[in-house]
Amino acid sequence: MLSFQELSTEFNKQFDTQHFPATPNTLYAPGEYFLTIGGKRIRPVMCLLGNELFANIHPDAYVVARAIELFHNFTLVHDDMMDEASLRRGMPTVHTKYDANTALLVGDVMLIRAYEFLQNIQPSYLPKILKIFNRTAREVCEGQQLDMDYAKMKSVSLEQYIHMITLKTSVLLAASLEIGSIIGGASENNCNLLYEFGKKIGIAFQIQDDYLDAYGDAASFGKEVGGDIKQNKKTFLLLHVMAVADESQLKALDVLLENNDADKVEKVLAIYNECGVPAWANNLKAKYMEEAFAHLEEIAVVSNRKKPLIDLANYLMNRNK
Amino acid sequence: MLSFQELSTEFNKQFDTQHFPATPNTLYAPGEYFLTIGGKRIRPVMCLLGNELFANIHPDAYVVARAIELFHNFTLVHDDMMDEASLRRGMPTVHTKYDANTALLVGDVMLIRAYEFLQNIQPSYLPKILKIFNRTAREVCEGQQLDMDYAKMKSVSLEQYIHMITLKTSVLLAASLEIGSIIGGASENNCNLLYEFGKKIGIAFQIQDDYLDAYGDAASFGKEVGGDIKQNKKTFLLLHVMAVADESQLKALDVLLENNDADKVEKVLAIYNECGVPAWANNLKAKYMEEAFAHLEEIAVVSNRKKPLIDLANYLMNRNK
Repeated sequence: MLSFQELSTEFNKQFDTQHFPATPNTLYAPGEYFLTIGGKRIRPVMCLLGNELFANIHPDAYVVARAIELFHNFTLVHDDMMDEASLRRGMPTVHTKYDANTALLVGDVMLIRAYEFLQNIQPSYLPKILKIFNRTAREVCEGQQLDMDYAKMKSVSLEQYIHMITLKTSVLLAASLEIGSIIGGASENNCNLLYEFGKKIGIAFQIQDDYLDAYGDAASFGKEVGGDIKQNKKTFLLLHVMAVADESQLKALDVLLENNDADKVEKVLAIYNECGVPAWANNLKAKYMEEAFAHLEEIAVVSNRKKPLIDLANYLMNRNK
Repeated sequence: MLSFQELSTEFNKQFDTQHFPATPNTLYAPGEYFLTIGGKRIRPVMCLLGNELFANIHPDAYVVARAIELFHNFTLVHDDMMDEASLRRGMPTVHTKYDANTALLVGDVMLIRAYEFLQNIQPSYLPKILKIFNRTAREVCEGQQLDMDYAKMKSVSLEQYIHMITLKTSVLLAASLEIGSIIGGASENNCNLLYEFGKKIGIAFQIQDDYLDAYGDAASFGKEVGGDIKQNKKTFLLLHVMAVADESQLKALDVLLENNDADKVEKVLAIYNECGVPAWANNLKAKYMEEAFAHLEEIAVVSNRKKPLIDLANYLMNRNK
């Protein structure tokens, strides 16, 4: 049995290859470029971990893991266009380095390529896995649409935000685990439990993401701390503050959000602190982690098989970037 | 056995339904909108015809036909963005009626939805059909990329143009027929022959498209005649003229292409006529039709089963819109 870190190393080694045909180079070189600029590659490793929880890893798990990572990168290429983001992982985004038409088509063909890897797995579970992959892919699009819709809305409830995050982020983590578990021969009940574990981990993951964006250490975070605050992004933190702040804090917050003064981040953070955001975020994250682990607990396999998954969950929750 | 027209009517009846879930409406309503504005729906009918050539139509053929039509519409939504086209079939394109971000995501989710229909066919031929669908989808993207690349190039050979058109247009027509034939239980050899028939028909189809854009009757064509000429689009016609025109004609053509005078279309057409474009285009179309029919001829089924396909080919070649 391989540890989470060993699987991560192994996946990265296998993924360090050409993913597209050579021509037309104008289409495929930008695709290869984006896939070389890195990323944490959590999703494919979750697929491998899902398999390993129940059985030794089948080569198909690597094939699906690759498809999942391609799918995730397709969403990033198109999301970066929608968000007009010029940098991703400190490197130029596809539409910035090339142009919008190229990025549009690169995303399209990356999604198709994901399906092209998927087609090669054992026919016995292809229909089942394809079904989960499709539903999840569609849900991720729905999440992105809700994210854009929410950006235009004056107020969003925490419940709505969690619904959006579940679609945009959690379901892909959950499906990665579930698909891996199908390849590992898990029972339907165990597959479902692992899916629920992934969904809760996904929400905790996003809380940590939002927290780091406001409270991260600039040196290790790798991108500008306070970016969400500058953009008035409705994060877990902001939505909580909007729900609990008193009238004078809300008024101050309103003024800060309407302007983009040099000390905006600092002053918004001061209100966050007055409202006890760090402790609240940590408690909420702990609550979702606990729920996640309760699902994992229920899965009927010997407990040492669960260790890599627990390690992954802890890594995700304690990361500083 | 149903005729080409009867299958077309039946497909349109079945396709006149909701294709997406109800929410989020901001994502799915634009998708439904685009699917109601029509189109010739040749590709799904070709899938049904491919099935019918060998056996009575299996319900799966309708499922795949629907997936193919969704895939085709996904390419149109994104192509319209790339071409900055404001109208499609006389109606506002998705990025015009809504916005670019919506159109981007609508295209994405339409492609995913196509795969979601595909997942429901019989597992026995799912891997084979998924493989053809994926390869074709990727090739269509490659064709679109080449089309954009060629627009920036000074000169393009007829051979290059045919290669681009094969990818952008022909392979989807060919694959629609082939997938239908697989559902119909055809032998591999017959499937291949039908695919080759579709590829040749596709090229003849594009010659007719290019011809109608220059020589169509404005009233029946449904869009502006001469649009390709106005945009200096490298069509079959223009590439032929560039290859056969004499020095003075080439010079005159160069001046016309560099400017956008009110009489541009009329004057370019005059040069086309001097170079015998209408007869040349008709001969080239006839050549590809002949090659297509030779492949159809080789398919070992009783000849009356081929009639609907012959009717379709003739309809496509003699259409005026």
